[in-house]
Amino acid sequence: MTEFLYGHWAVMEALRAKRRTVEQLVLAENVEEKDMVAEIVTLAKERNVKVQRVPRRMLDDLANGANHQSVAVRVGDYPYVDTEDILSLAQQRGEKPFILLLDLLKDPQNVGVVLRVADAVGVHGIIMQERRSVSVTPAVVNASSGAVEHLQVAQVTNLVNTMKDLQSQDVWLIGLEAGANVPPLDKADLNIALGLVLGSEGEGMRRLVRDTCDMLLSLPMRGKVGSLNVATAGSVALYAAWQARGWQGWEQA
Amino acid sequence: MTEFLYGHWAVMEALRAKRRTVEQLVLAENVEEKDMVAEIVTLAKERNVKVQRVPRRMLDDLANGANHQSVAVRVGDYPYVDTEDILSLAQQRGEKPFILLLDLLKDPQNVGVVLRVADAVGVHGIIMQERRSVSVTPAVVNASSGAVEHLQVAQVTNLVNTMKDLQSQDVWLIGLEAGANVPPLDKADLNIALGLVLGSEGEGMRRLVRDTCDMLLSLPMRGKVGSLNVATAGSVALYAAWQARGWQGWEQA
Repeated sequence: MTEFLYGHWAVMEALRAKRRTVEQLVLAENVEEKDMVAEIVTLAKERNVKVQRVPRRMLDDLANGANHQSVAVRVGDYPYVDTEDILSLAQQRGEKPFILLLDLLKDPQNVGVVLRVADAVGVHGIIMQERRSVSVTPAVVNASSGAVEHLQVAQVTNLVNTMKDLQSQDVWLIGLEAGANVPPLDKADLNIALGLVLGSEGEGMRRLVRDTCDMLLSLPMRGKVGSLNVATAGSVALYAAWQARGWQGWEQA
Repeated sequence: MTEFLYGHWAVMEALRAKRRTVEQLVLAENVEEKDMVAEIVTLAKERNVKVQRVPRRMLDDLANGANHQSVAVRVGDYPYVDTEDILSLAQQRGEKPFILLLDLLKDPQNVGVVLRVADAVGVHGIIMQERRSVSVTPAVVNASSGAVEHLQVAQVTNLVNTMKDLQSQDVWLIGLEAGANVPPLDKADLNIALGLVLGSEGEGMRRLVRDTCDMLLSLPMRGKVGSLNVATAGSVALYAAWQARGWQGWEQA
């Protein structure tokens, strides 16, 4: 199946990552080849990707009305990996596994934001349930600013089974839970072989997923307004975990 | 000047906070009074606010096409405070000042997300420049899920002057900067009288604002994709600061 990615960063990172086939670069007929568009065209030519100019309205259709910034690429399937590939990357880097698990997240924007942060903190991979959940759609690629093109994402048919499998390989699973009786994020040492589990917008983790976690931690809140958006909470938790790991892998200039 | 706030949480929190006059509650003519809409109507009646049913199209206009969820309220001006009010709240709570300063942020969505987190971590107030910057518009109230209705926000004509004034009152100003040579967030003790300064989307802090900071800190990044969105970076920094302050004021159940 082919699909169209759209937006400057999504298109740029798909070209840079070189992980899926890129069949065609589509530009709005009136857009100038300067700044990021120029960089994109150069990259596309280096990869021998055909460049085509089309009426803006056609791009609007390809992007389902989203903000495409005058560029799109026709690409092959997203290159999902297996859970084992994720663990292999950790081993290869000589690091304790650092994995993000998403339980039935629905909103492409939220998933995209969390994936962008997952890339920033260097997780080894993301595991998401195959059904009733967002997959790596063009909207997700766009919302992640293209970050997901560089990430290892596994889709599994049964998240709980995968969690048990990870546990049997000594990965410790911590679920992020909004409840008031849950200890705060810094109550546990996060510098471990870690799987961080995020529940869906509104409902949180499913009961069986929650029960399978080795520990639940919360993001404290003292304000007047209730729970935080899952993208915000997940971003904070991912950074707290990476901080606990001493910013491992960070190359300071 | 009157304006219309829209969306479940924005309307709810404006009614709960009781900080500005609420002149009228407007409901789409076909919306049922159940769940949050029922709660909103009850709150409005308790405050003797007139309830009016209007065609949905009229609500679309009032919300400038944004997602209003069938509810809006006509309200008086947002109750801005002075910098001194913010310092007073800190004193009143017996806490070291914890202040957020925003330098020329432009996007209501980003500002709303950061303000929601500012509420969650219990900052004593937010200081933003009056011109060339977003103010507390209905879009910001909506993006903050109404949190800003409970927060103290000061608008100042010259941010640098206000920064110097804060410094003369022993507030330490830390600017969040994306640069690669900047030490990471946990390099300084954030459990101090703190003003956290965020720069604008894209450009970061203005030079004079940056130069006035006592210290610059960065959010480390190790991924393939460049800088994080200011809302994400600000959220992580606010939580890191609150964690350093031992989750002060958090009432666990």
